[in-house]
Amino acid sequence: MATEAAADERSTYERFLEKVRRIENLGAGASMLRWDQEVKMPDEGIQARSQQLSTLSAVIHEEFTDEEMGEYLAELEGADLDPDQAAVVREVRREYERKTRVPTDLVGEISRTTSEALPQWKEAKAEDDFSIFAPVLEELLELKKEYAEHIDPDADPYAVLFADYEPYIELETAEEMLARLRDELVPLVDEIADSDAELATDAFSGEFDENVQEELARDALDVLGYDWDRGRLDTAPHPFSIGNQFDARVTTRFDATDPLGGLTSTIHEFGHATYTLGLPDEEYGTPLGDSRDLTVHESQSRLWENHVGRSRAFWELFLPRFQKRFPQTADLEVEEAYEAANQVYDDNLIRVEADELTYHMHIVLRFEIERELIEGDLDVEDVPEAWNDRMEEYLGVRPETDAEGCLQDIHWSHGSFGYFPTYSLGSVLAAQLFAHAEREIDDLEGRIREGEFDPLRDWLGENVHRHGCRYTTPELIEEATGESFTADHFLGYVEEKYGELYDL
Amino acid sequence: MATEAAADERSTYERFLEKVRRIENLGAGASMLRWDQEVKMPDEGIQARSQQLSTLSAVIHEEFTDEEMGEYLAELEGADLDPDQAAVVREVRREYERKTRVPTDLVGEISRTTSEALPQWKEAKAEDDFSIFAPVLEELLELKKEYAEHIDPDADPYAVLFADYEPYIELETAEEMLARLRDELVPLVDEIADSDAELATDAFSGEFDENVQEELARDALDVLGYDWDRGRLDTAPHPFSIGNQFDARVTTRFDATDPLGGLTSTIHEFGHATYTLGLPDEEYGTPLGDSRDLTVHESQSRLWENHVGRSRAFWELFLPRFQKRFPQTADLEVEEAYEAANQVYDDNLIRVEADELTYHMHIVLRFEIERELIEGDLDVEDVPEAWNDRMEEYLGVRPETDAEGCLQDIHWSHGSFGYFPTYSLGSVLAAQLFAHAEREIDDLEGRIREGEFDPLRDWLGENVHRHGCRYTTPELIEEATGESFTADHFLGYVEEKYGELYDL
Repeated sequence: MATEAAADERSTYERFLEKVRRIENLGAGASMLRWDQEVKMPDEGIQARSQQLSTLSAVIHEEFTDEEMGEYLAELEGADLDPDQAAVVREVRREYERKTRVPTDLVGEISRTTSEALPQWKEAKAEDDFSIFAPVLEELLELKKEYAEHIDPDADPYAVLFADYEPYIELETAEEMLARLRDELVPLVDEIADSDAELATDAFSGEFDENVQEELARDALDVLGYDWDRGRLDTAPHPFSIGNQFDARVTTRFDATDPLGGLTSTIHEFGHATYTLGLPDEEYGTPLGDSRDLTVHESQSRLWENHVGRSRAFWELFLPRFQKRFPQTADLEVEEAYEAANQVYDDNLIRVEADELTYHMHIVLRFEIERELIEGDLDVEDVPEAWNDRMEEYLGVRPETDAEGCLQDIHWSHGSFGYFPTYSLGSVLAAQLFAHAEREIDDLEGRIREGEFDPLRDWLGENVHRHGCRYTTPELIEEATGESFTADHFLGYVEEKYGELYDL
Repeated sequence: MATEAAADERSTYERFLEKVRRIENLGAGASMLRWDQEVKMPDEGIQARSQQLSTLSAVIHEEFTDEEMGEYLAELEGADLDPDQAAVVREVRREYERKTRVPTDLVGEISRTTSEALPQWKEAKAEDDFSIFAPVLEELLELKKEYAEHIDPDADPYAVLFADYEPYIELETAEEMLARLRDELVPLVDEIADSDAELATDAFSGEFDENVQEELARDALDVLGYDWDRGRLDTAPHPFSIGNQFDARVTTRFDATDPLGGLTSTIHEFGHATYTLGLPDEEYGTPLGDSRDLTVHESQSRLWENHVGRSRAFWELFLPRFQKRFPQTADLEVEEAYEAANQVYDDNLIRVEADELTYHMHIVLRFEIERELIEGDLDVEDVPEAWNDRMEEYLGVRPETDAEGCLQDIHWSHGSFGYFPTYSLGSVLAAQLFAHAEREIDDLEGRIREGEFDPLRDWLGENVHRHGCRYTTPELIEEATGESFTADHFLGYVEEKYGELYDL
């Protein structure tokens, strides 16, 4: 009897896994259609594409929440599963529960409202008039509060929304970390603003042909070890990376007056793609072959962008290649390139143009404002003032328009409240992981200088990528670093780096 | 009561149509993933892509053949539908019946066997050894006969297979037409071989940069009026066109020693895309917004490729553009370009390199052989000899290898028996449609010479494209031309054209 029961259980798990793979394959197909939409699709194609993607979403939702899935999960409750199987069930159950708790009508209403919100946000930004966007923002906040209430009526609604992007890190942990970043970085940025140090901020001024920039971006991907048999590089208005372990694509954008922007954006997306490519082939289509959530993903892009791409060692390696593509920079010294890549913009208003230090103040203010909005402590109409006040407090600069202030980001028009914190958490985790990689890899800096990136990629592959969703985020951090999630490494890193750069 | 019943019927049709649109959207998404696979996907991506496409096929099959669809079709049987609705139900019912009659196991076996057949065909071709491919070809023939038996046990199995590609033209009609082509074209090709006419066959000899060829292909698409907001041009190893009325993409290929090849291939695929773009926007996702089958589709590509792209008027228009891109051809006369574009290759062994005359002998021999194979009148092992004998009989040239003979085409490894005839039927229909367009458009030749393609595109749009699948193929031909499907126009066209070219 025991044997028979075991056989039955295995069979349930196998059928369950087949269904999971089926759903993941539909999702992976939809992802590629989104890549095409952003990168290749002719403009008018959107009229058919939006219907294709909406149908796929509906089919995926139905497959995920149908009776069969409910029965599998019920049968697998308390079944004798190995740890990998248990992890798969944990991930699927979590998503199943969140999906089934929200009424289909509400999902449809949120989807319709975000569709309407996007053009209203665009118009508001173009007209520099927050009042155009305010009513639909109000509506989205109400709908998302309702959504959170369905998922967990007893929880802090913002915590429920945050968990859509980062399911396993407690909101309290995130909140404490962001407060610590604010408390320690605001004085540091002040010190930098007061510093007499003169960095080579105009090292890369002039015009840089965008086609040559693309060749340079390919050089960078070659040097870093991007697997072109499993990827490709294209341009997109908003760079992103998408795909799976067999096909992880990078997009970037070029600006003729900002060659560092295109390069760092390429390296950032390379970090995302490298995570994806490190997922185990044989687990494709299951949570074990899928990446962890936004904090971990962003840690991978930031690690490559900041700890590698903005390091002195990288510029020792890469400047000659840069100069070969752009002979006008032939006289540039490594130190000048390094300084230009790391200057702190203490008067910058725009998040996506921020340096790796002030960036977090942009995040903290968004986090504080959206939390207060969801909790009802801030009225929508008061957002512009709250935004500008905090910009002044944290960065010493006040936006003169809403377009440069609270209307700059697209996220709220998507109804994405709770997303922003993961950007900062990703940077913090990047520093923690890099610190441990430095300890465990012999002369990592020297290897970067020599263009030997295999040891770092292997270390990340071994400690992060290959696990997929086997561990929760805190478990994964613990496994990889032997300590819990901490901002110590990040703060130590920026204090040392910027202290030296700005003679503090 | 009558009103209530009518309301019920309408509601059934609406729900049915919603399901049809859902299925079409999944199919349209899958099509775009196939485009990506051929055009953009990195090599290793196939490992995930094949699973995505196979999942999508399974979901589409299930949605198409489920109980709900059966109930809708039963309820709509004899319902009071307008002609458009009746056409939609006709098309869906036909496909539903074919799909539900074939057991899922057999579909799976055919799919697995074609997957195995492809590498075996490739190896056989590379090794020039038909015996490597013969066993799996035998297996595929048996499976396809079984498949045909399930769909209609009383019908000629080849007719059932042919109907997968051309559902509404009777096999007898196709057979008579192909026999007539054979009987009239073989003597014509003989006459041409004996002719003393010396055509400017080396007008385009030399090297033509492939990047410049691509610019020239874009010039051609500009001139012909391709809508770049609803399309794009890329290269692919095997050119094809894919998409829907909002996004119909063209692919082509370039060969540095054959600039005419890349150009005619581009114009051919433009013809397919123009059909797709002429389908009504508002019917996207239903058979009324979908193109008719292969004969009609191929008629559109051949019409633009041959009747426009190989015409003297087109070369009067286009040669200056060609010469601007390739100054080495500055001294070329229109007549020379026209002759080079229309030379008959009486010693060519390869179908895809054939001219518009001998092409059909390549088709006739394939048609005769695959028919005999399905009927059991020819053994697989005797295919090479049967092939070579017919090549000698119809074209006066005998392949020395199987790689250049019966192994040259990929189609049989896909299990596609019955596909080839539609290529010739398409040419025949192209001539019939063009003859009527010439009658109805004032000075069509002059307009082509002036680069005014709107009248021709509008005529095709009005008489062919906008109908989608409203009419069956014979009805559509009748509607467009006022006569039934006939090879008279095609034969008249080639006799006049080649009689003049070769002084016959």
